[in-house]
Amino acid sequence: MSDQAGYVLTQATLATMVPGKDAYGLIPDGAIVVGDGRISWVGALADLPAEHATLPRQNLGGRLVTPGFLDCHTHIVFGGDRAMEFEMRLNGASYEEVARAGGGIVSTVTATRTASLEDLVAGALPRLDTLIGEGATVVEVKSGYGLDRETELNMLRAARRLAELRPVQIRTTFLGAHATPAEYKDRDDAYIDEICIPTLRVAHAERLVDAVDGFCEGIAFNAAQIERVFKVAQELGLPVKLHAEQLSHMGGTALAAKYGALSVDHVEYATEDDARAMADSGSVAVILPGAFYTIRETQAPPIAHFRSHGVPMALATDCNPGSSPLTSLLLTMNMGCTLFRMTPEEALAGVTRNAARALGVSDAGQIAPGFRADLAIWDVKTPGELAYRIGFNPLHSRIYEGAK
Amino acid sequence: MSDQAGYVLTQATLATMVPGKDAYGLIPDGAIVVGDGRISWVGALADLPAEHATLPRQNLGGRLVTPGFLDCHTHIVFGGDRAMEFEMRLNGASYEEVARAGGGIVSTVTATRTASLEDLVAGALPRLDTLIGEGATVVEVKSGYGLDRETELNMLRAARRLAELRPVQIRTTFLGAHATPAEYKDRDDAYIDEICIPTLRVAHAERLVDAVDGFCEGIAFNAAQIERVFKVAQELGLPVKLHAEQLSHMGGTALAAKYGALSVDHVEYATEDDARAMADSGSVAVILPGAFYTIRETQAPPIAHFRSHGVPMALATDCNPGSSPLTSLLLTMNMGCTLFRMTPEEALAGVTRNAARALGVSDAGQIAPGFRADLAIWDVKTPGELAYRIGFNPLHSRIYEGAK
Ligand SMILES: [Zn+2]
Ligand SMILES: [Zn+2]
Repeated sequence: MSDQAGYVLTQATLATMVPGKDAYGLIPDGAIVVGDGRISWVGALADLPAEHATLPRQNLGGRLVTPGFLDCHTHIVFGGDRAMEFEMRLNGASYEEVARAGGGIVSTVTATRTASLEDLVAGALPRLDTLIGEGATVVEVKSGYGLDRETELNMLRAARRLAELRPVQIRTTFLGAHATPAEYKDRDDAYIDEICIPTLRVAHAERLVDAVDGFCEGIAFNAAQIERVFKVAQELGLPVKLHAEQLSHMGGTALAAKYGALSVDHVEYATEDDARAMADSGSVAVILPGAFYTIRETQAPPIAHFRSHGVPMALATDCNPGSSPLTSLLLTMNMGCTLFRMTPEEALAGVTRNAARALGVSDAGQIAPGFRADLAIWDVKTPGELAYRIGFNPLHSRIYEGAK
Repeated sequence: MSDQAGYVLTQATLATMVPGKDAYGLIPDGAIVVGDGRISWVGALADLPAEHATLPRQNLGGRLVTPGFLDCHTHIVFGGDRAMEFEMRLNGASYEEVARAGGGIVSTVTATRTASLEDLVAGALPRLDTLIGEGATVVEVKSGYGLDRETELNMLRAARRLAELRPVQIRTTFLGAHATPAEYKDRDDAYIDEICIPTLRVAHAERLVDAVDGFCEGIAFNAAQIERVFKVAQELGLPVKLHAEQLSHMGGTALAAKYGALSVDHVEYATEDDARAMADSGSVAVILPGAFYTIRETQAPPIAHFRSHGVPMALATDCNPGSSPLTSLLLTMNMGCTLFRMTPEEALAGVTRNAARALGVSDAGQIAPGFRADLAIWDVKTPGELAYRIGFNPLHSRIYEGAK
């Protein structure tokens, strides 16, 4: 249905995800008025204002409507895959044997550098299509497997191209500070100063960057190195976010909070002080259970601290070829509940309202007047079912910018 | 493509899963000759016999072909769902509060008893369709939520009806010894003798039963009670299988092996002696990681003992509304690898060759002459990719009895 003239969706249960007294911002027997790609009115059908009464109606047959999903942390643009490494490890190969066979992030960097822009786009599309097929309307995409100027730019150009090929909003993130490439081995500082930061400036000039990210970890960069990148982001007026406290406590969260980060991601080893700092800076905790599951991590993120200090929690796939080859936000919701004891409502907020906040997108993730008419319509009766089932996709249809 | 006259599938990598020296029974540049719903020849295209050279060919574009998948342990026929209970628990409700709200298996039994045959079929179809959508061609379906004569029969009739509605082979399993219903509370023996066994006889007379199962556990039945059911199965000429050693070691495996069980399922607490007994009886270990994941079990099944004693391992969804609302065999494969360190080849054997053996189906689960032409065609290059990815369905197409 085109939305040029406006229309009304009726006979639906709405999980609006608008904060308030009702769980899920639920409206039974709800109606949504859509026009010009935006939501113009939401409420109980019985309260539909007379001015909208003559618009064409679409009966949703009692289905559940949620905001379109947002995946606020992905690495879906990359070359190659790591299936062989996955198999070698399970067949008992040592870390060294895998490395000798060209495994690890090096293999992804090599394959990504070899790939053309078209290759990168073609490789990412099936992953993007899977996310869209589960109701995603906004997907974040990071660079970080090029680690040289041309390939980092190519990854971001591929991400921008995805938005031209599919009805989806793409938010790009520059992640030059993801790892140090082989040619800068043991020269992390030189990599940051000679490659990462200059590439960020060029990418920004080409309008390829919506946000700036880094990986603060023993196997990646320390807080001082990340801070040099953040200072440049600040100078360029770009928001920052950070992969922090995933495998150990490195102080990345405090740094990110100091720079007013949109989000701090992974955060398994974050402390209560970190949660306080995030609450003060308004940063979202992006919970990534797919990586936790895949690498068999045992330290769960401090959900209780995030709750008690009012830190908004998002959930994302972290889709990447090494530690989370995951392309299902529904499964991510189930993992958030099963592995981290998040509630189904927190899980749904994590892929809608709070994911929007993690991306700095102010007009998505809720069904409310003025918001984008990005909606997911589900063959379920209650929103709790979305997190409950495993490996099941009840998406009935998706509306993007008011159009199917 | 109809297979009346026979045809040849070409340009494919074949993971035949025929045991032998090559991993996955792999044939690169393979061809499959199909006729009358069966596989009549398999090999390298270069070796295609002259007699098949004039048959029509279908070029599979280099895709991977595996046997159609078999889900050898499911409870997909049931009434209601348990999403509310899932949500209550995560919102902090105690076991008693959930029970007072009508949760637990009782709620499924109540909903299943209330459901008509048509309701049961309609409820199961989306679950079955999801399995079929990932390449399943054989699905086992258990009774066990009726726990009275009419409802147990209705569940099995619903299972039989599924095979008429979809291009899939259904194997039915009588699971009267699943739980004791409320009306027989604290009278487990009476339930076995007055309901379970008489219902088995009636169901068998109605040709509704392909195998007989039970749940041997502290919260269900002890080995002596299960044995009374197994004796009747033996008398009726029906093969047996058992849910055993899931939450504790109850001796179910030894009992099942004594009765030559097709499979022993769950088996987290099985011992090395159990593995030896299963090897001697030729029983398959059916590994169910979805339940392990959902109930956050920590005791993994003794994969190493199964390997060293040559016990075949299958993998199944255990799809059920309480402990494993899972409908993806691909995700089950990933869970088998990630949670239990099975190899990708063991995972694929687990949903093909060994699942067929667990069901007593001798002509499915391998791509070999004389076997059913039940095939799954995948948009991947190597079989290892099937277990590696998470929440991704690369099925290109499915062939059932030679027809698409
Ligand atoms: Zn990441
Ligand atoms: Zn079961």
